[in-house]
Amino acid sequence: MSTPLNLGLIGAGRIGRLHAEHIAFRIPNARALIVADVNEMAARACADDFRVKFAVPDYQVIIKSPAIDAVVICSATHTHAQIIQEAAAAGKHIFCEKPIDFNLPVIDKALEAVERAGVKLQIGFNRRFDANYARVRQAIASGEIGQPHLMHIISRDPAPPPMEYVRNSGGIFLDMTIHDFDMARFLMGCEVEEIYTAAGVLVDPDIGEAGDFDTALITLKFTNGAFGVIDNSRQAVYGYDQRVEVLGSKGSVSTGNNYPNSAVVSTAESVRRDLPLNFFMQRYVESYVSELQQFVDAVLQDKPVSVTGVDGKIPVIMGIAARMSLEENRPVKLSEVRW
Amino acid sequence: MSTPLNLGLIGAGRIGRLHAEHIAFRIPNARALIVADVNEMAARACADDFRVKFAVPDYQVIIKSPAIDAVVICSATHTHAQIIQEAAAAGKHIFCEKPIDFNLPVIDKALEAVERAGVKLQIGFNRRFDANYARVRQAIASGEIGQPHLMHIISRDPAPPPMEYVRNSGGIFLDMTIHDFDMARFLMGCEVEEIYTAAGVLVDPDIGEAGDFDTALITLKFTNGAFGVIDNSRQAVYGYDQRVEVLGSKGSVSTGNNYPNSAVVSTAESVRRDLPLNFFMQRYVESYVSELQQFVDAVLQDKPVSVTGVDGKIPVIMGIAARMSLEENRPVKLSEVRW
Amino acid sequence: MSTPLNLGLIGAGRIGRLHAEHIAFRIPNARALIVADVNEMAARACADDFRVKFAVPDYQVIIKSPAIDAVVICSATHTHAQIIQEAAAAGKHIFCEKPIDFNLPVIDKALEAVERAGVKLQIGFNRRFDANYARVRQAIASGEIGQPHLMHIISRDPAPPPMEYVRNSGGIFLDMTIHDFDMARFLMGCEVEEIYTAAGVLVDPDIGEAGDFDTALITLKFTNGAFGVIDNSRQAVYGYDQRVEVLGSKGSVSTGNNYPNSAVVSTAESVRRDLPLNFFMQRYVESYVSELQQFVDAVLQDKPVSVTGVDGKIPVIMGIAARMSLEENRPVKLSEVRW
Amino acid sequence: MSTPLNLGLIGAGRIGRLHAEHIAFRIPNARALIVADVNEMAARACADDFRVKFAVPDYQVIIKSPAIDAVVICSATHTHAQIIQEAAAAGKHIFCEKPIDFNLPVIDKALEAVERAGVKLQIGFNRRFDANYARVRQAIASGEIGQPHLMHIISRDPAPPPMEYVRNSGGIFLDMTIHDFDMARFLMGCEVEEIYTAAGVLVDPDIGEAGDFDTALITLKFTNGAFGVIDNSRQAVYGYDQRVEVLGSKGSVSTGNNYPNSAVVSTAESVRRDLPLNFFMQRYVESYVSELQQFVDAVLQDKPVSVTGVDGKIPVIMGIAARMSLEENRPVKLSEVRW
Repeated sequence: MSTPLNLGLIGAGRIGRLHAEHIAFRIPNARALIVADVNEMAARACADDFRVKFAVPDYQVIIKSPAIDAVVICSATHTHAQIIQEAAAAGKHIFCEKPIDFNLPVIDKALEAVERAGVKLQIGFNRRFDANYARVRQAIASGEIGQPHLMHIISRDPAPPPMEYVRNSGGIFLDMTIHDFDMARFLMGCEVEEIYTAAGVLVDPDIGEAGDFDTALITLKFTNGAFGVIDNSRQAVYGYDQRVEVLGSKGSVSTGNNYPNSAVVSTAESVRRDLPLNFFMQRYVESYVSELQQFVDAVLQDKPVSVTGVDGKIPVIMGIAARMSLEENRPVKLSEVRW
Repeated sequence: MSTPLNLGLIGAGRIGRLHAEHIAFRIPNARALIVADVNEMAARACADDFRVKFAVPDYQVIIKSPAIDAVVICSATHTHAQIIQEAAAAGKHIFCEKPIDFNLPVIDKALEAVERAGVKLQIGFNRRFDANYARVRQAIASGEIGQPHLMHIISRDPAPPPMEYVRNSGGIFLDMTIHDFDMARFLMGCEVEEIYTAAGVLVDPDIGEAGDFDTALITLKFTNGAFGVIDNSRQAVYGYDQRVEVLGSKGSVSTGNNYPNSAVVSTAESVRRDLPLNFFMQRYVESYVSELQQFVDAVLQDKPVSVTGVDGKIPVIMGIAARMSLEENRPVKLSEVRW
Repeated sequence: MSTPLNLGLIGAGRIGRLHAEHIAFRIPNARALIVADVNEMAARACADDFRVKFAVPDYQVIIKSPAIDAVVICSATHTHAQIIQEAAAAGKHIFCEKPIDFNLPVIDKALEAVERAGVKLQIGFNRRFDANYARVRQAIASGEIGQPHLMHIISRDPAPPPMEYVRNSGGIFLDMTIHDFDMARFLMGCEVEEIYTAAGVLVDPDIGEAGDFDTALITLKFTNGAFGVIDNSRQAVYGYDQRVEVLGSKGSVSTGNNYPNSAVVSTAESVRRDLPLNFFMQRYVESYVSELQQFVDAVLQDKPVSVTGVDGKIPVIMGIAARMSLEENRPVKLSEVRW
Repeated sequence: MSTPLNLGLIGAGRIGRLHAEHIAFRIPNARALIVADVNEMAARACADDFRVKFAVPDYQVIIKSPAIDAVVICSATHTHAQIIQEAAAAGKHIFCEKPIDFNLPVIDKALEAVERAGVKLQIGFNRRFDANYARVRQAIASGEIGQPHLMHIISRDPAPPPMEYVRNSGGIFLDMTIHDFDMARFLMGCEVEEIYTAAGVLVDPDIGEAGDFDTALITLKFTNGAFGVIDNSRQAVYGYDQRVEVLGSKGSVSTGNNYPNSAVVSTAESVRRDLPLNFFMQRYVESYVSELQQFVDAVLQDKPVSVTGVDGKIPVIMGIAARMSLEENRPVKLSEVRW
């Protein structure tokens, strides 16, 4: 094997540790040299657990290190854009967790910095790499189901996040639906023109008091004439519910949930199986490995990344339009979102 | 067994023959005495095939016959309201195919006649009697899935109807979606307040030239705070696609399609099964028997019918609102529909 | 429609009433003229419920009636062979419930009488007409799965029959497995050469005390070189479990159980569905209609029946061989069964 | 984390490389220090790919190295027993691929050496660690399905192995069925008393010329009174078919195959999904990780291993009995297998 890609990991929280584990054990042609976290203890623990050589409190160490080829940004959302700019200026390739930012001018500034520097930027929309969604994309892209007409995206969390998380999440449309907005564009292979949102607070009144929503149906009109609907809930008590269905002119494709096993138990009461996987880290673990592997390969072989900065920006526009639609109770065109 | 209910069948077309067959062979406590159709040959054939004593061209023979206890109206839609009024005036109980009419004042006049006469009127929303939908209703009504939050109704025809049918159908919302509007109310157990329609012509341009649509996503806001979406297409090439899914606070319930057999064939190419049942008469045959059996029992035992005249009227209001929403591209409240 | 076939129904018990109902309501080109049962009250009730003109205690009335074209024999097993002979001698076509008899010389005598008389005889192996099994047969006969190699037949009752039934049933192999023996031959399209039986009493010790077994695995060697296993249990607490799976050189085909609905309920406990249909009359109702319809058509159109007298005899030979194998704990060739 | 377990890997073929990869990337508390293979190139490649420090041609280097805590034996079957004895004598814990040997006295000698030395020995019956089978075991062990009555084990390869492999495999019963024999004992939680084998050559005549079989149905009688059947084929053209079903007094449990994705595609031809995983390394990859993790943990924490030497020996006895049954065409008791 040739020299592995040297990565600097910025942020050693839940998602940072996930990437660190994958870099250590699942991605042969990369290694994490430095991990940075303002919480130095967290950086240290991450380094110890996942074979990272150095742990530091200040991510600038990574930016400035000539040994580092690329950064993996897993810090708090409000820091993403600034770190992207600094990393780009230092000539580092960048993998950044979604969302880039909630503010469109801020996103634009980051993307401009990336373009100026000529470095690669991949956004962490991991679900594109999931085997189920990839198969749906293939069914559409290959013409297996003909021209797409109607799309359903079901995306439900097993339980609401802590209220503190809710308050800083940017709202359900920018926190949760953003994945589904990306999925809609990715699967359909074209853009969304107009969004209509119906949403309410049916799960937890505290979410409403925080100004957010926990239940939504979001209608999408695509530029290719097709229609889609995103179904979001903060609470599917049976587990993490992540499915998609697309009807086309020559057929349909649909996916189911992932389960811990395939066993079916039949008793005098019911024919039943165990609950679907309950947590995004279990459900999507392989997609997290694949996205980072793809990024590493793109850098090493100088190939285009598959989730670009623009792919990171458009779902934010969609989230803003979705919220606008809800507040004004009318369909909103993406072109109405100004900055 | 006590005396069977004596029925007069008005209309010997496709749906009339279906009811005639069920009355002859599946419903022990009823018999069809007279069948009327303006096409006397059709009436005669129906009588011969399904053991009906008399075949006549004029439905007034049925209305005036003292031997007839109840009428089953399967004639063209524009004749329904008039026949309802005459049958009610003659003291006959009435089973009427959907829709009562496309015109709300005309519906009101018919319903008033029924009320005045004190006869029973049941509308032919047969799907309520289908085992799958009945099980979904039970899951909601019994609290098995808690408070309902989100509903998906998938309702797709295998292929578009003939253009002549399309032109006289009243449009997709009053012809096809009307079943789904009824289903939404029935399953949710409450009313719809507001409708938003996204629709287009993706299947057949001729449908668009006739001023109709073939593909639609219709968002519903229910009075209980829940949200629903109806997915309609005139063309699901794999067969008649009729499913529903409801997410509630304590779980979800979903149904699949009905298949001619349960066989799964695995070869070097794929793991596959035969296509779902392709036609509404196969898919819903048992529900047609059940609805008529329920009507016959309601008359014989003087019990309330389960699909009332109001149940026949509200989906028409919903169809009008859906069309208005599409034309004005905005959510429309049912209360905006005036007559 | 031409003149319907006039049937005489012999035996007005559970299965006789089932056929009577189908003749009355589901089979347009036949009618039951006379029903006979030693229990005259039962004959009378059957006649009243299912539009049969005459009810008599003595089946000879049917045999002697010139109006009768064919008999449907649903009486006790030990009377089958005698009635077959008498009906054949009288020139009546014969539909006879399985088994013809438990005694091979007695069966031979009955089949000889049928042959002499040149009448049609169809044996009531209804499952061949079930949509699931018919699809499996098609997959084999059409070459869809290539040459068959391995077959599993799962055939489990929901609960053991009453002990009185067990004592007069001829034993599990002649009462229950006999259907599966027929199915094995029908699906495979060739004969069984050798049988090995492993069986025990695991469900109810009373069955063992009556000299019978309630749980069995029966290995079959077919003349085409393939192997099969029949899985029998008198108790599958979740319902009537009736499935088959065949592996061939080009693929496999398998069937599932039939359910009252397709609804799946997901809660915090499990993903579950309602139990399979629990009783053979529900599970196989359509196959009962089809077999009798096929018999009626075969007589009216003078076509061969699809389940012949020999098809009725061979499963009895197999049942005897299965029992012999169990008693001697060794594989037994069908050619060892002598009479 | 405390000091990892130092492993010596003996054999760098397909399965050796699999374990090497898992040790390198999936098992945090172990590392492979030395890999030995008579083919030194293979040892070197394995070391390079999976971070193993030393690559040697002679496994004795491992046995003699004081740095090595335990050996992982993946060499050719005929070398297993000798290496076990040497490793045990050197005080190394042992993970050994199945089978220990085909010769029972040789197995006994190896197991005696292990016992004398007081080291741990775990046999590589990885399927016990598969999530599906583990769930079935749980359903039985917990009483969820009551007392087990009937068991089906379906175990089919996608395609026959190369003829050279067949000739040295020890025959289908000791090569392929041995996994299913282990599974039968593991799931049922008791021993098999008697075996009856029906088998033939239906897939490839060359296999028959080599004196082996490619298609088999093997009936098992368990000491608890239950019955089981193992279904083996060297060719399931649709993929690796690995399922189990157990009927008990309170219900049943069954598992399905594992698929690369959950997508269902419906077109005008069929409702289909992609083929099941085609190769044991994909299908069982997680179970290989788990078994080795369990071994490492058992050594580090001085706990009993879950697949013992006796668990390695009994399936060989069963394989010999299965072959004897086939040759003599009679049920054979395990107690008849003498050595």
